[in-house]
Amino acid sequence: MISLEKAIKIIWNTAKILPVEEVDLLLSHGRVLAEDIKAPFDYPPFDRAAMDGYALKVKDTYSASKNQPVLLQISGEIQAGTRDRFYLSTGKCLSVMTGSYLPEGTDAVVKIEDVETIKNGKKYFIKVFKPIGKGENISFKGEDLRKGQIIIKKGNLVDAAVFMMLAYLGKSKVKVRKQPHVSILATGDELIEPGTELEPHKIYNANSYGLYGLVMENGGIPHNFGIAKDNEKSLTETLKESLRYDIAIISGGVSEGKFDLVIRVLRKLGVKDIFWKVAVKPGKPVYFGKKGDTLVFGLPGYPVSAYLSFHMMVKTAFQKMFGYRRPISFFIYGVLSSDIRNDGDRTALLRVKIIPDTDDNIVVPYHKQKSGMLSSVVETTGLVIVKKGEHLKKGERVKCFVLRDFYF
Amino acid sequence: MISLEKAIKIIWNTAKILPVEEVDLLLSHGRVLAEDIKAPFDYPPFDRAAMDGYALKVKDTYSASKNQPVLLQISGEIQAGTRDRFYLSTGKCLSVMTGSYLPEGTDAVVKIEDVETIKNGKKYFIKVFKPIGKGENISFKGEDLRKGQIIIKKGNLVDAAVFMMLAYLGKSKVKVRKQPHVSILATGDELIEPGTELEPHKIYNANSYGLYGLVMENGGIPHNFGIAKDNEKSLTETLKESLRYDIAIISGGVSEGKFDLVIRVLRKLGVKDIFWKVAVKPGKPVYFGKKGDTLVFGLPGYPVSAYLSFHMMVKTAFQKMFGYRRPISFFIYGVLSSDIRNDGDRTALLRVKIIPDTDDNIVVPYHKQKSGMLSSVVETTGLVIVKKGEHLKKGERVKCFVLRDFYF
Repeated sequence: MISLEKAIKIIWNTAKILPVEEVDLLLSHGRVLAEDIKAPFDYPPFDRAAMDGYALKVKDTYSASKNQPVLLQISGEIQAGTRDRFYLSTGKCLSVMTGSYLPEGTDAVVKIEDVETIKNGKKYFIKVFKPIGKGENISFKGEDLRKGQIIIKKGNLVDAAVFMMLAYLGKSKVKVRKQPHVSILATGDELIEPGTELEPHKIYNANSYGLYGLVMENGGIPHNFGIAKDNEKSLTETLKESLRYDIAIISGGVSEGKFDLVIRVLRKLGVKDIFWKVAVKPGKPVYFGKKGDTLVFGLPGYPVSAYLSFHMMVKTAFQKMFGYRRPISFFIYGVLSSDIRNDGDRTALLRVKIIPDTDDNIVVPYHKQKSGMLSSVVETTGLVIVKKGEHLKKGERVKCFVLRDFYF
Repeated sequence: MISLEKAIKIIWNTAKILPVEEVDLLLSHGRVLAEDIKAPFDYPPFDRAAMDGYALKVKDTYSASKNQPVLLQISGEIQAGTRDRFYLSTGKCLSVMTGSYLPEGTDAVVKIEDVETIKNGKKYFIKVFKPIGKGENISFKGEDLRKGQIIIKKGNLVDAAVFMMLAYLGKSKVKVRKQPHVSILATGDELIEPGTELEPHKIYNANSYGLYGLVMENGGIPHNFGIAKDNEKSLTETLKESLRYDIAIISGGVSEGKFDLVIRVLRKLGVKDIFWKVAVKPGKPVYFGKKGDTLVFGLPGYPVSAYLSFHMMVKTAFQKMFGYRRPISFFIYGVLSSDIRNDGDRTALLRVKIIPDTDDNIVVPYHKQKSGMLSSVVETTGLVIVKKGEHLKKGERVKCFVLRDFYF
């Protein structure tokens, strides 16, 4: 039996980074970057107006006041995106809109709502009522991004913000990691598929679905192999097929019962054991092996245990395969709402609900912690790791892994 | 100009809940439930073994000790999922595996690793070395879920945990909300599409992509209408088409510049104004209107502003359409790493990075807060709302909206 930390480390060191593929920008959303993204130019690529208004020279406004406004002639109108060249002369101004380029010599833009426009003959003027500060309402060339600067490192997920940045930089093709193909097989003669009538002494196959969802949420492509029977012949045939993917996940059949022959069959099929049994509750019977480049995870049959084992261990393989720099977690701190004591002989994964209160995050242990309690999982948003022998007290600030979004 | 709170309230009250559709279980992942999910039976549906071991009567083990073990004859073997009926007599036990049903009269299961098995003639026995507690290693009928109990309420997202629970309950069809179809149109003559060469005084269209990603991440189906030219004829044609969706998002062309004719054209096409201008920075020029059941959002042209306006306002429409009970946010609390003062005349959305430190979440304001700074968005994981005139001090615990996952 190895520790959870050790198991994570071994998985990290065993998994191999996936190959790169280049996809169209629009298809890069939801994928993981396989290249560092650099700014190809300064951004903005030119000095531009940050507001609708008038480009001017600030020294022309030094004497302006509410009672003695300065008059500046509007000598032109710069539309955003125009190719025309404009010049700004002393004592004049140019009408600009947000995003318009600013000609040389412009050192501020006065906002449209801060001036009055008047007509004198065929000429238009603006009245400026106060001195304008140098640089006001100008977005300067390169103030956002500098040419050559790394903006996003490889290993980052392309979410909406990154996607927006890739477009902003003009990328049309993006190098991303291939997605891992993952086979999912449930074992257990007590299982039947949802949608059929419940027979005596049977329960529905929840694991295949939970794991299917987790694979998708973690950027993999799931392949559902359904339920294998607990007999050697049928199991051998199905497992053989399921080992042809980047990752093979099998749930059930890995503990010590005499019908638990999954591991025996895996070995016969050439899978090499890497570890079996982890000092964590739930999750003790987790098996990890390898055949060629295929990673094999044997997860416990209890839905709660399979779900949490995926979060704590299988995810690590995904992260390494996607080229993350290290195993990562999404965690926050919060205040524990009740005493927790781990009197067991393994590290405990305490299922909790994270509730932002009036000035802190409250971490509420779920009242049903037995492995058979799937009800806990739909209520659980986080996990607190409680070490063997550890006693966490009510009111203590604890580290809490976030498993799912929690909304309030 | 209305407050952000008022804007959110109006959007919530204007949006209408979407119709229901029934989908196959496998397609329900990522969708929003449109039905309350009840337990159709007690779960587990029968008393079952929680571990591999032997089903027994506890009174047979009262006298057991390390030196004087009790011998119980193994009178049968209950495979998980079997249809056979078994009986447990006094002084005997039954071999069971995790998930096996337990016959009447069983009041505990002793773990396989806690006993020794011996053979005497043709009979097999176990040696029990200590008294077994009543109920030990039994998962009782209904201890997880009670028949008729509401397990998940409508309005919840079907993520992996919920998906797993739906399977566990045997559902094969699930009622979910239809997904909103969303048209996305960028305006601005300064825009060109990524993948083309950057021309003088132009910038790449980032908004269409950022909004496309946000629509997908929020469960909608995006339709990209590209870039509309800032002239009335072309804009009219494109907008007309874009108004045929559940939500029409237009970015740019909603501030006060003279070329900003989006709102004028929307009105001509029969869109009724609901509000225009919100006292929030960034996001002031946000426009919200309606034509029939189509909601129309005019967002600012700056990518940062469009992105944050979507998070703060457009999301609310999605939530109402999906049947959430109220507008919700994902937030945490953390400690501010530096002083922040809002001396402006509007509520400020402060872009921050959330960093879990050794015992608290640290909230670090991003150093570039100008609306033109898209670099801030790829670094930003949260938002702190700073009211007009408010002064938040370093070390203060602040409420922080989570915009994206933050990993460490």
